[in-house]
Amino acid sequence: MSEQKDSRTEIGEIGEFGLIDRLSSKFSTKNSSTLKGIGDDAAVIGNGDDLRLYSTDMLLEGVHFDLSYMPLQHLGYKAVAVNVSDIAAMNGIPKQITISLALSNRFSVEAVEELYKGIHFACEDFSVDLVGGDTAASPSGLVISVGVIGEVTKDKVVYRKNAEENDIICVTGDLGGAFMGLQVLEREKAVFKANPEMQPELEKYDYIVKRQLKPTARMDVIHELRDLSLVPTAMIDISDGLASELFHIAKQSDVGITIYEDKLPISKMTYDMAVEFNMDPMTCALNGGEDYELLFTISQKDFEKIKNHADIAAIGFVNKKANGLNMITKNDNTVAIQAQGWKHF
Amino acid sequence: MSEQKDSRTEIGEIGEFGLIDRLSSKFSTKNSSTLKGIGDDAAVIGNGDDLRLYSTDMLLEGVHFDLSYMPLQHLGYKAVAVNVSDIAAMNGIPKQITISLALSNRFSVEAVEELYKGIHFACEDFSVDLVGGDTAASPSGLVISVGVIGEVTKDKVVYRKNAEENDIICVTGDLGGAFMGLQVLEREKAVFKANPEMQPELEKYDYIVKRQLKPTARMDVIHELRDLSLVPTAMIDISDGLASELFHIAKQSDVGITIYEDKLPISKMTYDMAVEFNMDPMTCALNGGEDYELLFTISQKDFEKIKNHADIAAIGFVNKKANGLNMITKNDNTVAIQAQGWKHF
Repeated sequence: MSEQKDSRTEIGEIGEFGLIDRLSSKFSTKNSSTLKGIGDDAAVIGNGDDLRLYSTDMLLEGVHFDLSYMPLQHLGYKAVAVNVSDIAAMNGIPKQITISLALSNRFSVEAVEELYKGIHFACEDFSVDLVGGDTAASPSGLVISVGVIGEVTKDKVVYRKNAEENDIICVTGDLGGAFMGLQVLEREKAVFKANPEMQPELEKYDYIVKRQLKPTARMDVIHELRDLSLVPTAMIDISDGLASELFHIAKQSDVGITIYEDKLPISKMTYDMAVEFNMDPMTCALNGGEDYELLFTISQKDFEKIKNHADIAAIGFVNKKANGLNMITKNDNTVAIQAQGWKHF
Repeated sequence: MSEQKDSRTEIGEIGEFGLIDRLSSKFSTKNSSTLKGIGDDAAVIGNGDDLRLYSTDMLLEGVHFDLSYMPLQHLGYKAVAVNVSDIAAMNGIPKQITISLALSNRFSVEAVEELYKGIHFACEDFSVDLVGGDTAASPSGLVISVGVIGEVTKDKVVYRKNAEENDIICVTGDLGGAFMGLQVLEREKAVFKANPEMQPELEKYDYIVKRQLKPTARMDVIHELRDLSLVPTAMIDISDGLASELFHIAKQSDVGITIYEDKLPISKMTYDMAVEFNMDPMTCALNGGEDYELLFTISQKDFEKIKNHADIAAIGFVNKKANGLNMITKNDNTVAIQAQGWKHF
C-alpha cells in the first residue's frame, strides 16, 4: 500500500483543523480573482464589485447521516440547505448548486428520485439552480457531495476576520435543538432494534427532530439584514456548535469573546430533553452541532436595528484578545469556553 | 429503509445518462446568471462578458482508482487534472479548485500529505488556487470530490451544441493509451497476487501506464488555440471514450458525424499492447476512456491554422443528421459507431 511510511501520524492526533492547516500551508495564491481561499465559510472570487462565493460539503452515510431514520427526501433537502448556509454566512445569495452522488446498487431509481425531490424542494425554497454534478457507483454507502455558488457585492461580503472590540455578538434562532433531536432519534432506533414491534414515538419531539432531519439555512435573516442596511462585521454559520464557531471568529479577528449564559437561546423542548437525557442544556447549546443558525457580530451603532427582533438574540460582546473566550454564568461566575469541535475521526 | 417502494427500477436499466435525464427534467432555471446548467462539461455562470465556468467530479476508491497500483501523489494530480480538463473543454482557463476528502483511519497524516503533494504539483502546472474543501471520515474507502472554477469571456466559451455541417472534427494527442495502461496494470496486479515475489514489469510500458496514472489536461492546446485566434464550434473532453463523446456532440448539435479509421491517432505502444491483449486497437481508441484529450469541431475556414499541428489530428467531418454516426474503415466500408459509454453500475 502506498500509504505505508516509516513514520506514521494518526489524523486523530492533529484533528481535522490541524490537518487542514498542515496541508494548506504549502499552497499559495496565484490568481488575482482569488480574494479569499481556505479559512472562511466560502471562497470569495472576483475582480470587480460583483463577487462569487463558492463552497462545498460532502455527506457520507454512516458518518453524517443514518438512513434508518433519515428519510431520503429530508436528506436531499438538508444536503442543499447546509451548503446554502455557508453562502448565508458570507452575507451572500446562493444561485447555483451541483450535486455529485455515489450510489450502491441497493438504491433504486425510485429511491434516487426521492432524494432529488428533497433537493428540488430546497432549490425552490432557496431559489438556486441545479447546474450539474456527477453520478457514480459506490462500493459501500451513499455519498453526496454538494457545491454551491453564490453572489455578493464587495461592500456586503462578510468574513470571519473583522469583528472588533465592543461589537455585539448575535445568534439567530435557538441552539442545541438539532443535537437533542439526534439523541431522540438514536434512542428510538435503539428501542426499535431491541423490539421491532415498538413504533417510534417521534410526534411529540417534532420540533427538535425536524431541526436534525430537515434544517434550514437562514436566508430569511440575510434578506432582513439587507432590508435593515445592516452589514455584520463578522459572521459564520453554526454547524459544529456555538463554542467552536466563537473560536473561529476570535482567532481570525484576533479578539476575545464574552458571552452570557442567560442570553443563550434554547427552546423549551431542547432544555427539557437535555434534562431527561441527564445532559447540561448549556453544554448542548454550546457544543451541539448542526443547528445551521448564524453567529454574527455588529457595531454597537447597529444594535437599535435588531434589538427587538424576535429571532435574533444578543448573547455577548467582543472583548480584548487578552481576555480570551469566556462565559458569564447565571451565578455571575466567569468560565472559560471550551471548544469541542469536530470529532468524526 | 426509505428506499423500499412498491415498484423498483434498477439504475442499470436506464444507465447513468438515463438517470441524469430523468432527475434533471424536473428542474428549471430561475436565475439570470445561470447561462448553462446540466449537459455540458461545465456550468456557465455570469451576466456580463466575463463568465465563470464550474464543474465537479467525484473519484471513489475501488471504482475510479485502485490504491494497490495508483500512487497517492499521482492520484492527487489526476483528481485535479480531470477537473481542469472539463474547464479546457469549455475553452476556459481554470482558476480555483476545492478538494473534499473522505478518509478512513488507515490513512495517516503522511499519506494524506503524499496525496496533497500531487494536488500541489497539479495546482502549479495549471496555475489554479486551492480555495477550500472539506475533510471527513470515511466508513470504507477513500473518496475525493473536486470542484473547479474557471474563467472565459462570452465570445470564447465553447459548448457541445454548436457544431455545424461540414465542420472538421479534431482530436488532440492519441487515443486508447490510458485504457491499455489500465490493462497492463491489472495484468501485473494479477501476476503479483499469484506470486508476490514477482516484481511488476512496468518500465517498458511507461507511456501508457502514465496515461492511466497521471493524465494531463490539454491546457497547452487551449492556449495555442487562443494564440491562433481559433474558437472551435463545439468541444468536449474525452473521458468516456471517443465514440461516447462523438454521440454527445452529435446529439446536442443535432448533426451527424463521419470519421475515418485511418485518421484516428493511436500510439505504437497502444497498438502493440492491444494486439498482445487480443483486442482490436480501433475499439480501444474508440471506447477506451480516461485519455482526457480534447475533441472539437472547427469551421473549414480555420483548418489552415491547425493542419500542420503535430498534436492535433483531423479525423472526420460533421455530417447531416440523417447520416447518423459512421466510421469509414481502412477498407472503405462504412460502419455505424457504437457508443459504449459509462458502465460503473
